[in-house]
Amino acid sequence: MTFSADRSYAESLDSADELSGFRDRFVHADRDLIYLDGNSLGPLPVRTQARIAEVVDQDWGVGLVRSWNSWIDMPREAGDMVAAHLIGAAPGQVIVCDSVTVNLYKLASAALVYQHGRDVIITDDDNFPTDRYVLEGIARQHGCELRLIHTDMDDGISEKALSDALDDRTALVSLSHVAYRSGALADMRRLTRLVHEAGALMLWDLCHSVGAIPVELDENNVDLAIGCTYKYVNAGPGAPAFLYVAERLQDRLQQPIWGWFGQRDQFAMGPHYDPAPGIDAFATGTPQIIGTVGVEEGARLLGEAGIDRLRAKGVALTGYVIQLADEWLSDLGFTVASPRQDGRRGSHVSLRHPDAWQISQALIRESVIGDYRTPDRVRLGPSPISTRFTDVWDAMDTLRQIAADKSYTDIPAGESRVT
Amino acid sequence: MTFSADRSYAESLDSADELSGFRDRFVHADRDLIYLDGNSLGPLPVRTQARIAEVVDQDWGVGLVRSWNSWIDMPREAGDMVAAHLIGAAPGQVIVCDSVTVNLYKLASAALVYQHGRDVIITDDDNFPTDRYVLEGIARQHGCELRLIHTDMDDGISEKALSDALDDRTALVSLSHVAYRSGALADMRRLTRLVHEAGALMLWDLCHSVGAIPVELDENNVDLAIGCTYKYVNAGPGAPAFLYVAERLQDRLQQPIWGWFGQRDQFAMGPHYDPAPGIDAFATGTPQIIGTVGVEEGARLLGEAGIDRLRAKGVALTGYVIQLADEWLSDLGFTVASPRQDGRRGSHVSLRHPDAWQISQALIRESVIGDYRTPDRVRLGPSPISTRFTDVWDAMDTLRQIAADKSYTDIPAGESRVT
Repeated sequence: MTFSADRSYAESLDSADELSGFRDRFVHADRDLIYLDGNSLGPLPVRTQARIAEVVDQDWGVGLVRSWNSWIDMPREAGDMVAAHLIGAAPGQVIVCDSVTVNLYKLASAALVYQHGRDVIITDDDNFPTDRYVLEGIARQHGCELRLIHTDMDDGISEKALSDALDDRTALVSLSHVAYRSGALADMRRLTRLVHEAGALMLWDLCHSVGAIPVELDENNVDLAIGCTYKYVNAGPGAPAFLYVAERLQDRLQQPIWGWFGQRDQFAMGPHYDPAPGIDAFATGTPQIIGTVGVEEGARLLGEAGIDRLRAKGVALTGYVIQLADEWLSDLGFTVASPRQDGRRGSHVSLRHPDAWQISQALIRESVIGDYRTPDRVRLGPSPISTRFTDVWDAMDTLRQIAADKSYTDIPAGESRVT
Repeated sequence: MTFSADRSYAESLDSADELSGFRDRFVHADRDLIYLDGNSLGPLPVRTQARIAEVVDQDWGVGLVRSWNSWIDMPREAGDMVAAHLIGAAPGQVIVCDSVTVNLYKLASAALVYQHGRDVIITDDDNFPTDRYVLEGIARQHGCELRLIHTDMDDGISEKALSDALDDRTALVSLSHVAYRSGALADMRRLTRLVHEAGALMLWDLCHSVGAIPVELDENNVDLAIGCTYKYVNAGPGAPAFLYVAERLQDRLQQPIWGWFGQRDQFAMGPHYDPAPGIDAFATGTPQIIGTVGVEEGARLLGEAGIDRLRAKGVALTGYVIQLADEWLSDLGFTVASPRQDGRRGSHVSLRHPDAWQISQALIRESVIGDYRTPDRVRLGPSPISTRFTDVWDAMDTLRQIAADKSYTDIPAGESRVT
């Protein structure tokens, strides 16, 4: 089909969309709402709603403490589902636990100790805040240098900048696979190889790619990875994160938070910490069960849709956002602030505009939810599994009307805390 | 009323129990089940069941990312509720986040850095495993000594042993307020004072006391505390833990996991970590929302019952377990393995028996749920808010029949993983 800015073009894309049926697997309480923020909090899958009720009413309400006999394996089972369906990892290398922040702390600390004698951590100056802060803290704690490579806010990580920064002091490189603001997609294969050539370990943050982009951790020889589950995995607000440690490193790395869920033969409650074999040693305390059920269901649903088909649709959706932006928005003060090349873009697009904050608020008022990101970006994330091309058309049409009419100017310029 | 081993005595205690109405605030799916393991996983409050459904269906399902505008304050709001109703802390000193394991790691690490020049951590050799393991890890990481004082497995912490162990090298003492196995209750006031006299900081683990015993953190000048919410607080499986940092220490201690939820002006996403003022600096990553709702509801419900009334009932219930054990079980190979003095006992009682594992399994088969703890304890936790005196009578009656008939001998002697 040839691009046209008419709504009928979006309708024909929807008709041809083999994933269109998956939209009904989500709760749509407000049929007029257009939700382009699944990259911040994914929508509620129908089956997850039922499973959470089941876990609360039956497992907790009726089974009570006896349910721990099955709950106890869930973090690893959910991890294996994420591994198999979404991130290209063989079983036994992923566990669902803690938050992204805590998991990054654990893995980066472990990597640094393992790389004894090397005292530099590299990340980029546009990495997600929690990544930068955690690494800053670890560097301080271990007396290391945190070396920040400069990343173009719209274009993502520069291979040359990374190459220039790497040296034989580098212990660890930690980067995001997809940039939270621009959506720029890093070349996992090339960058991991570069890092390995310098003798450093590579840790990927998959928060903005998992569930939308095929990730091949094993194939790319990645060492460590972390990711969240409340975005494209649709596991719910504050659902637990996951971590990946390549099998070859599991018995060489020791994470710093020695909790009873990382202990061999946990219920023997022995006198000294003796890490469990394999990935279990990277768990810490009692896992949150309700959130882990959300991860299982989310990964299962995405697996059913198929990550390659999701990626193809994601490329089409974000490409369509850019086409409509070019057609309608460039005369209204907007600039595309994401890579234009399909292969270099994740599943969201940012549009730069000096009044981005007010515009994003005006969009919400018109039942179109994207979000705002500093300093001047409207970020639109059309989650492949639940978004229609007509949703994109309607959202972009609303956006151009708001911008053309300047109907957002009654909104105070101050920034809210969240959305 | 004078003790009698007849069931009618239990019935009259129930009739006189002013908290008896609170039993109906919990889901009782199986009316024949006697649940004496609320100290491991508290039962499901009716209102929590409804609130979780509301959070899932409405906040997540309908509100979507917009709900973060209210969710974002919940960890501190829930913390203030725990503070006010359960642990005697003024507002702004408690936050609900992470797990007990992770919170202990954060606070103990921070304390050690603050106490620069002192290089000993003291805990006791019968402390809960995750506490011992976390402290062992921290000691290793910081090149400190972990000094273990010996604790009688049935009788709790010895003031003399602590006193002998304290010296001017001691940076931190970390103890459990109620011992997980014996239920021995530590004297928070005396021990905290002793620790302060040595110039050390005091960290209390409240897991087995919060919600059952009045805790007075501010009044006792406690420095740091942690606790879980899935036991007596009834917040659900893997609900988040809480931590307390006395106001006077909040700007002097820096915890090691520098996440975006601990950052001042979080959504400005600034270049460097700049800890938020107050207790917020002790948060890390994205909080789990569903579990936090469970904490709010659990604390609210306990607050309504009143912690002093709950304590009085808890003393009566556990005292009654001991009276019946003395009456019925001492000839059947059982020994009371908990303090007999009311003021030295938390809200659970352990009974020692060489076949404890099999007996605890046989109890479950007869619809009486307590639990087993190594090496040879049947642990019975009659949660004050939801347990009747007749439940205790029926459970103890079942226990004596099982022991008398040796009807447990068909159960293999191997220990299960959880219950």
